[in-house]
Amino acid sequence: MTREMRGTASACSNIALIKYWGKRDFTDNIPLNGSLSMTLSQATTTTTVIWDDTLSQDEIYLDGERVLDGRGLRVSRYLDRIRADYYRMPARVASMNSFPAGTGIASSASGFAALATAAFAAMGEEMPSDTEMTRWARRGSGSACRSIHGGFVEWLPGTSDADSTAVQLAGEDFWDLRDLVVLVSRAPKAISSSEGHKIATRHPFMAARQELLPARMLATKGAVAARDLMTLGALVEQEALEMHAIMMSGQPAALYMQPGTLKLLHAIRAWREDGLPVFFTLDAGPNVHVLCESRDAPEVRARIEQLMPGLSILENRAGPGVRVHEDHLL
Amino acid sequence: MTREMRGTASACSNIALIKYWGKRDFTDNIPLNGSLSMTLSQATTTTTVIWDDTLSQDEIYLDGERVLDGRGLRVSRYLDRIRADYYRMPARVASMNSFPAGTGIASSASGFAALATAAFAAMGEEMPSDTEMTRWARRGSGSACRSIHGGFVEWLPGTSDADSTAVQLAGEDFWDLRDLVVLVSRAPKAISSSEGHKIATRHPFMAARQELLPARMLATKGAVAARDLMTLGALVEQEALEMHAIMMSGQPAALYMQPGTLKLLHAIRAWREDGLPVFFTLDAGPNVHVLCESRDAPEVRARIEQLMPGLSILENRAGPGVRVHEDHLL
Repeated sequence: MTREMRGTASACSNIALIKYWGKRDFTDNIPLNGSLSMTLSQATTTTTVIWDDTLSQDEIYLDGERVLDGRGLRVSRYLDRIRADYYRMPARVASMNSFPAGTGIASSASGFAALATAAFAAMGEEMPSDTEMTRWARRGSGSACRSIHGGFVEWLPGTSDADSTAVQLAGEDFWDLRDLVVLVSRAPKAISSSEGHKIATRHPFMAARQELLPARMLATKGAVAARDLMTLGALVEQEALEMHAIMMSGQPAALYMQPGTLKLLHAIRAWREDGLPVFFTLDAGPNVHVLCESRDAPEVRARIEQLMPGLSILENRAGPGVRVHEDHLL
Repeated sequence: MTREMRGTASACSNIALIKYWGKRDFTDNIPLNGSLSMTLSQATTTTTVIWDDTLSQDEIYLDGERVLDGRGLRVSRYLDRIRADYYRMPARVASMNSFPAGTGIASSASGFAALATAAFAAMGEEMPSDTEMTRWARRGSGSACRSIHGGFVEWLPGTSDADSTAVQLAGEDFWDLRDLVVLVSRAPKAISSSEGHKIATRHPFMAARQELLPARMLATKGAVAARDLMTLGALVEQEALEMHAIMMSGQPAALYMQPGTLKLLHAIRAWREDGLPVFFTLDAGPNVHVLCESRDAPEVRARIEQLMPGLSILENRAGPGVRVHEDHLL
């Protein structure tokens, strides 16, 4: 090699406030509807890619270990899409998550945002635009497109690979909202997110959900713009419960909530009636994302710890977009 | 009085396998869709009615105590409907439940089936037909129409007071199915069933639910006819989760499940994967109805007791229809 074909990028995961659940297209991850997320400051994936034509095949390392299963295959298939347009070399890829495995934080969002960015950075040429990078990230994992940007992000669904991209609504300093991710259960998911998208897409309630989402999306953007947690929280809880309603009434039914999930949900509603402005959202899993203003975060954390002692809590603020840097893993 | 204007009747509650949730008409309790239930042998209400023109107003006693609140008013308003067509006298009414309060068993179903029947029995004339009695019971509480009959019962929704009636599909000896009602929580409901019906009726998913219900109803009747628990149970769980999906995604959202509910639901699914044919359904509340064959009931009970020690379990088989008898409460 005449120049170093190496690049490293870090990206944060994100939590969807309006959900991505159901796809128009499963190859390019074109969603049925737009979604809206907050990038999570404390949930970072860092990935180094080295394009290396001396390799006979890709070598993938996750959290320090060589990966030879389906996860590695997914990365290689993704690299094939980049190779189809650019260099046709094998790659050595190493990726580390800042957050522990099984926290219910979507590592594929931060993972593919970091991988896409590192893969292009390793080419040593001018990077594609941020918008173009959201397309590349989305091809790896739909929600990864939102992790290209920091702060509050909207995924404009589009109808094809050409026009399905993410845009930043507000930067990470716009609003010091907190998301305390509470790991209420490590029970493995009975139904993967990938399978869940398929079930949702054919769900008999999905057409009605699509009809009501544009109004909810607009109201949610308005609440973010106004930094209005009471309005945002009501919309976000409704959205989370609706996604879980779709999940639990699908075929097969996915009951992602665990007893601890419900315990915390009921407690959050009671705390709110008590005057504490705190709200929840959920991903496709049992863990709870607890949303509050920064000034209330210590009180919220104390109440969670009192209610359910010993649980891991990861406190996030709005995090930055993807960064290219020189702290290479390889 | 020249003859005793006194009558007593006993009726069992019932558990809906296909749910009544959402009304076409709120005065006469005309449902959006048909429903299907099993009458519950161990959940009986006995009611005595005495028509007495020496009273200046109705006197209502529930479980031995004079009732002067909204529950008594509901009974009086109901008696007004009978009085409009028949005797115009005040009544003394006493009612007792065989099952403890707050078990999550619908006492209004057994209650209004027994009240309607006792009120007519007290007239000392020929009783209306069973079908006519289902109409009278339904006017008091929708699901009460199903408690007129024993065994397995279908409520034909109709479109008006004239044609919304319940019919027996199979008698109580047809199939020795068991329903173990597990009282997982005594937490009060945040949203009443009456309010829940209103929320459901305007729910954006309700139209899609109505479209899929006729096929599910037919399949459920077929499973009862074949005494096929594996088929019945799958349909019944799907139906219960769909009702709770509608509840939790309504406005306002009703999260009737409690942590113990989910604990038992997940356990039931695990036991089934283990080879034990056991299924659940839920009413508008946190308690779990556990369905199994009679031969498996001891094992199912033992597992529930081991999983969640100390909970009340009320084991029902298919119960009889409403009975007029002479063991008066007054």
